[in-house]
Amino acid sequence: MALTLDISVSLDGFVAGRNPTLEEPLGEGGERLHEWVVRLASWRRQHGLEGGESHADDGLVAEASRSLGAHIMGRRMFSGGSGPWEQDPNADGWWGDEPPFRHAVFVLTHHPREPVVKEGGTTFTFVTDGIESALDQAKAAAGDLDIGIGGGADVAQQYLRAGLLDTMHLHVAPVLLGGGTPLFGDCDNGPTALRLESATQGHEVAHLTFARAD
Amino acid sequence: MALTLDISVSLDGFVAGRNPTLEEPLGEGGERLHEWVVRLASWRRQHGLEGGESHADDGLVAEASRSLGAHIMGRRMFSGGSGPWEQDPNADGWWGDEPPFRHAVFVLTHHPREPVVKEGGTTFTFVTDGIESALDQAKAAAGDLDIGIGGGADVAQQYLRAGLLDTMHLHVAPVLLGGGTPLFGDCDNGPTALRLESATQGHEVAHLTFARAD
Repeated sequence: MALTLDISVSLDGFVAGRNPTLEEPLGEGGERLHEWVVRLASWRRQHGLEGGESHADDGLVAEASRSLGAHIMGRRMFSGGSGPWEQDPNADGWWGDEPPFRHAVFVLTHHPREPVVKEGGTTFTFVTDGIESALDQAKAAAGDLDIGIGGGADVAQQYLRAGLLDTMHLHVAPVLLGGGTPLFGDCDNGPTALRLESATQGHEVAHLTFARAD
Repeated sequence: MALTLDISVSLDGFVAGRNPTLEEPLGEGGERLHEWVVRLASWRRQHGLEGGESHADDGLVAEASRSLGAHIMGRRMFSGGSGPWEQDPNADGWWGDEPPFRHAVFVLTHHPREPVVKEGGTTFTFVTDGIESALDQAKAAAGDLDIGIGGGADVAQQYLRAGLLDTMHLHVAPVLLGGGTPLFGDCDNGPTALRLESATQGHEVAHLTFARAD
């Protein structure tokens, strides 16, 4: 039951480009970080789409998806919004009627509300009492499977700082954004010493896995 | 005759930690980025030392060294200083009597002076008319071999922005510095589209090679 971050990042360490908006949430050039994954068969199947490429990257993405039994994400990853729910134009989430998670998703927020149940097995539960509570609830929901951090970078940093992050799967795209949302910000290792677990060459991106050294 | 950057970088993209000084030029924690290389036999031999580890990383470092026929570096990499030479406490360079390069090194500076000839084949030549001039001179000196950018990050960025950088060998250490000197800063791809050429798992660090896509 590891807490896992699986995220695409630019060569200069950004997970989104400059000036993200509701219409372009990945910022300027940010979608270039995800080009490698959105054309894979496993990603497309997970999102209810047909076709797609089937090579080693595809197996890796399918395997990562199979290993997860719950997700934790920030409020902004759920809806793109902030503040009271009645003022959020995407209060029902921006993931559509059948979100790709197909398991329990815990959304960190300061604004309590009832869970949102979607088709295909995804339930969004809103957690207002902090990251440790969200992790406890996610562990209970995930059973023997792992828990994925669904972003954003600030949520990943909170778990890293707290020494609760076990594994990072980083997909490094051959792109320099020059600015945007840094994955790590001013976050150092904190209590977690890291070691490189694997580095493999994907079709377009480098797959790096780092885990706790202890 | 490729222009090549070969550099160790933290997982969060820094080539040196916070608060670099003349005594601690790599800043706080920056020496952790280089721990993997300084214990290798090939690195030690190059620096006039005996012993060291011999595994795959060692071959990689030896091969990278053999492929280079000249270096280009910034003034600060030569001496740690700046401004007029008569005020620089390391005006003769801080690389010792027998620097590890053993070929022509071109130092970018605004302050002209005669070349400095060292033992073991290293000659430092000072270039005041810009990065393209330095590259032309380095190409002439390197013959059929490649040219290495010896840092710092600002020099690498200048060549990248100008579309003159051919290959980057990045050694990603499992360390988050949380701040310091970013390798890329606000530098985007500029005119150079990049592609991943290889990703391999080293003993402690990930070795990533990116090259021009065109």
